[in-house]
Amino acid sequence: MSNSREYFKSAVSVDNVIFGFDDTDLKVLLIKRGEEPFFGEWALPGDLVYPNEDINTAANRILFDLTGLENVYLEQVSTFGEVDRHPKGRVITIGYFSLINIEKVSPRASSFANEISWKNVRDVKELAFDHFKIMTTCLYRLQTNLKLKPIGFELLPERFTLTELQLLYESVLGKQLDKRNFRKKITKMNIIKDLNIYQTGVAHRPARLYSFDAESYQQALKEGITFEI
Amino acid sequence: MSNSREYFKSAVSVDNVIFGFDDTDLKVLLIKRGEEPFFGEWALPGDLVYPNEDINTAANRILFDLTGLENVYLEQVSTFGEVDRHPKGRVITIGYFSLINIEKVSPRASSFANEISWKNVRDVKELAFDHFKIMTTCLYRLQTNLKLKPIGFELLPERFTLTELQLLYESVLGKQLDKRNFRKKITKMNIIKDLNIYQTGVAHRPARLYSFDAESYQQALKEGITFEI
Repeated sequence: MSNSREYFKSAVSVDNVIFGFDDTDLKVLLIKRGEEPFFGEWALPGDLVYPNEDINTAANRILFDLTGLENVYLEQVSTFGEVDRHPKGRVITIGYFSLINIEKVSPRASSFANEISWKNVRDVKELAFDHFKIMTTCLYRLQTNLKLKPIGFELLPERFTLTELQLLYESVLGKQLDKRNFRKKITKMNIIKDLNIYQTGVAHRPARLYSFDAESYQQALKEGITFEI
Repeated sequence: MSNSREYFKSAVSVDNVIFGFDDTDLKVLLIKRGEEPFFGEWALPGDLVYPNEDINTAANRILFDLTGLENVYLEQVSTFGEVDRHPKGRVITIGYFSLINIEKVSPRASSFANEISWKNVRDVKELAFDHFKIMTTCLYRLQTNLKLKPIGFELLPERFTLTELQLLYESVLGKQLDKRNFRKKITKMNIIKDLNIYQTGVAHRPARLYSFDAESYQQALKEGITFEI
């Protein structure tokens, strides 16, 4: 670092892939850009990291600005640093994903967005910058972790039916799962609690409601039981 | 990015956790720093990313400078961006790990290192900067992935015995594994090839030699067989 000044010319940004689930489809929260470059195109929400801001703080700030939510599941996935990825200079961006309960938010456009909208992940085919690559990288990580850790519950309301839980898994993994097998695995792990109450206001026969049992999960971890769907 | 100049004042570095295995212990390649800050202390090999260099290229460059190896298993793990992590200014660092066959290298100190040495991972208790945190984060990722993907073979010679393979797993995971169970899982996955030859020059009864069967592994992946130890 003898001649280090020339190195201190990069900017660092964070981009957030905010996932939600609407009972049927896996969604991603996108913004329509209100400035150049890529004016008017859909992009991931993100921003430059302030000079005196930790990177995780920046990721949480963006999430809060758009959703009003705090203390949400947030995972750093990968950093993208190709030399020419940003037309305004060397900008290295850190990709995060977060999982939110879609019922809890009414997203609001912030200073850097003209418009904000939930899109079906499977329908998104291109995005500004290298954001499509960032989104697919985060989706792949979500798919991997969904099978290893009970993070899927972050996307659901507090009370859910087993059908809703299975639909969530199918929607994230992009494939159908065998109902009997799925229920066997879920019950065997002892990580959901039967609330002994039923759905209300549904047209079909009301189904049983469950909630995630964090305590049993911690216990299962201690006993070396692996979460696996 | 209206007033963006103040943002383009960060430097980006990469730090490499280079893992090796010496038949008994999981090793990490460390350098003794030849300059301030942390002069004379042990650290991960790393360097600033050149203004016109991709981040992955930088990680490969460091690996090549120290080991002479190219096309080695390299995985980006996490980016560390606390505001005060570097005394010389805002330096965001991207942590990578790589897996190398220790027999193939005689590490050489480069411009930024006074000394270079393989250390037992379990014996390393502190490092310069936040490098200890980077090392443990990468070790944790290696442990996770070792159970999901056949990357352990990168740490072994091309031909190995089942005992060597098991010792590798035990050494990375930090726990003993049941021999019968381990062999059953490994053979069931059909990802190693029995070479029908035996060790030579050993004091004990020579054991059978195996090699990793990349083709069978690709086949297993296609058939949806999950790698799991």
